[in-house]
Amino acid sequence: MSRLAEFDFIARLLEPLADKHAALRLGDDAALIDGPGDGTGQTQWVIAKDAIVENVHFREQDPPTTIAMKLLGTNLSDLAAMGAEPAFYLTTIARPSHMDDAWLQAFCEGLERMQKHHKLALIGGDTVSTSGPITLTCTIIGQVPKGQALLRSTAKAGDLIFVSGTLGDSALGLRILNGLGASDEARIYLGNRYQMPEPRLHLGIALRGLASACIDISDGLLADIGHIAERSGLGATIRLDQLPLSELGRQLPDAVQAALSGGDDYELAFCAAPADKLKVIEAAHKVGVIVSEIGVMEQGSVVRILDENGQAHAAAQTGWQHV
Amino acid sequence: MSRLAEFDFIARLLEPLADKHAALRLGDDAALIDGPGDGTGQTQWVIAKDAIVENVHFREQDPPTTIAMKLLGTNLSDLAAMGAEPAFYLTTIARPSHMDDAWLQAFCEGLERMQKHHKLALIGGDTVSTSGPITLTCTIIGQVPKGQALLRSTAKAGDLIFVSGTLGDSALGLRILNGLGASDEARIYLGNRYQMPEPRLHLGIALRGLASACIDISDGLLADIGHIAERSGLGATIRLDQLPLSELGRQLPDAVQAALSGGDDYELAFCAAPADKLKVIEAAHKVGVIVSEIGVMEQGSVVRILDENGQAHAAAQTGWQHV
Repeated sequence: MSRLAEFDFIARLLEPLADKHAALRLGDDAALIDGPGDGTGQTQWVIAKDAIVENVHFREQDPPTTIAMKLLGTNLSDLAAMGAEPAFYLTTIARPSHMDDAWLQAFCEGLERMQKHHKLALIGGDTVSTSGPITLTCTIIGQVPKGQALLRSTAKAGDLIFVSGTLGDSALGLRILNGLGASDEARIYLGNRYQMPEPRLHLGIALRGLASACIDISDGLLADIGHIAERSGLGATIRLDQLPLSELGRQLPDAVQAALSGGDDYELAFCAAPADKLKVIEAAHKVGVIVSEIGVMEQGSVVRILDENGQAHAAAQTGWQHV
Repeated sequence: MSRLAEFDFIARLLEPLADKHAALRLGDDAALIDGPGDGTGQTQWVIAKDAIVENVHFREQDPPTTIAMKLLGTNLSDLAAMGAEPAFYLTTIARPSHMDDAWLQAFCEGLERMQKHHKLALIGGDTVSTSGPITLTCTIIGQVPKGQALLRSTAKAGDLIFVSGTLGDSALGLRILNGLGASDEARIYLGNRYQMPEPRLHLGIALRGLASACIDISDGLLADIGHIAERSGLGATIRLDQLPLSELGRQLPDAVQAALSGGDDYELAFCAAPADKLKVIEAAHKVGVIVSEIGVMEQGSVVRILDENGQAHAAAQTGWQHV
């Protein structure tokens, strides 16, 4: 089943079931719910749920510690994209017979490391047996001051587009782990970027009231900018020569394509008014993250890519099709 | 991996990671969290997460509509056991290639039917592909007046033990669906009990302030009474001749064993002070559920079963071992 078909499925079948207010039409990184009872509190819970599957989202030979870190990292990244602070999580582990006690031990060490680092507490979950691949799901719960969550749907034409960190490292790291020749340094750095994505939680919080829209890059830059464009009813132009590539990544073949559509980056892509550009850079600097301006939101319904000569790049997407 | 080993695993590895307050040591049917912010509200969120796997928790030939109903039914049953009202859910669908559009369509119809029936709204989730069996997870969120959630750990010695409905039907229904000879009537009634468990939400709410402890019967009566006993630091005696069996179920072989340890019943087992016995029966009657008194909590750490002659039954468990 292609990714496109998956998005179609969500839109067609699940959207009618969704709570229009809380679920943000299932179109954001997480749902927002008011406190229980009368909902008059000044804080909202932010809830997201993601699953990862052996040999789809991680490799069977990946260390269980890093698999746990990736499970929580990808879920925390959804909170980062909403500008939320982590609070709790629940997890479900579907265990095939090949998952032994040592695997579980190491997996739980990874959970613990992430919990401590991100001040997160486990509050529940389930373990089930399966005849198939290891399947791990996480429900993550964070909080955000009411009305301050960062959404995908609120970008404005003329807003600048920024991304944090560097792009494409994770996809390149996966290729190296799967056999692409590279230096030891590249193997470790880029491999870690694939296995242990760092959720940009501090940046997300720093962008409250500053970013006009935000998303985490899980599907790939083009697809995820497409999500912002679609939800905001806009188009976008991305400048190929402004994409931030890591020193180690840029030396590898197809680094630009990896940055555009490799996915699994778990960096934040966000929009802000041109007048706020310095504030954005300053806010990111304060939390130790480098951000790069890579394009602009505009009227229309196309996400265009311009190369260094201002020419349309072959990989340009029309409409909001996903890579 | 045996169920026993699974419980050990949860206790040994996951409990140290759990939030002691919210997660109730992972030992209840759901977690309780206060509203976000200062948590001074009068209501708490109740959160549970369960997974079901093709050919483990449902059969691959089960209708997708009923699979959806079972997914939500088992999760709603966790809310029922806590005395909570349903509010929201998130779901993750791991899709093998054999899951076609017709399957998804029917599955979503099942979700919709349950949503309408239980006033529940979808607020998020994830779909991923898998090379293995269909794996479905649900995170369910309900609410309960603060301090009124029903727990497992609060039973007292001398409390009577009650169960709702009839026991063993689901396990017998599964046997019939898998080929055990039975009348059409039994096939439909007991098969439905397996495929479409009815969460006892109204009963759970009615038992607030009345039941001293409560659990839903998913692992089997003996195992689940064992959970209450263990968490409450008590033992229990169950009277075999008082187990409620359905008319259709009792005609089948091993009906009593199915009632003791078949599991998947999704009835409530709960404790109440002897002085409250009539109130319990009345409260259950008001919500249209029949409850049966089946035993008593007592000092000790053994769950005993007595037969109609007051003799220890062969299936008696010592300690809190799980079936």
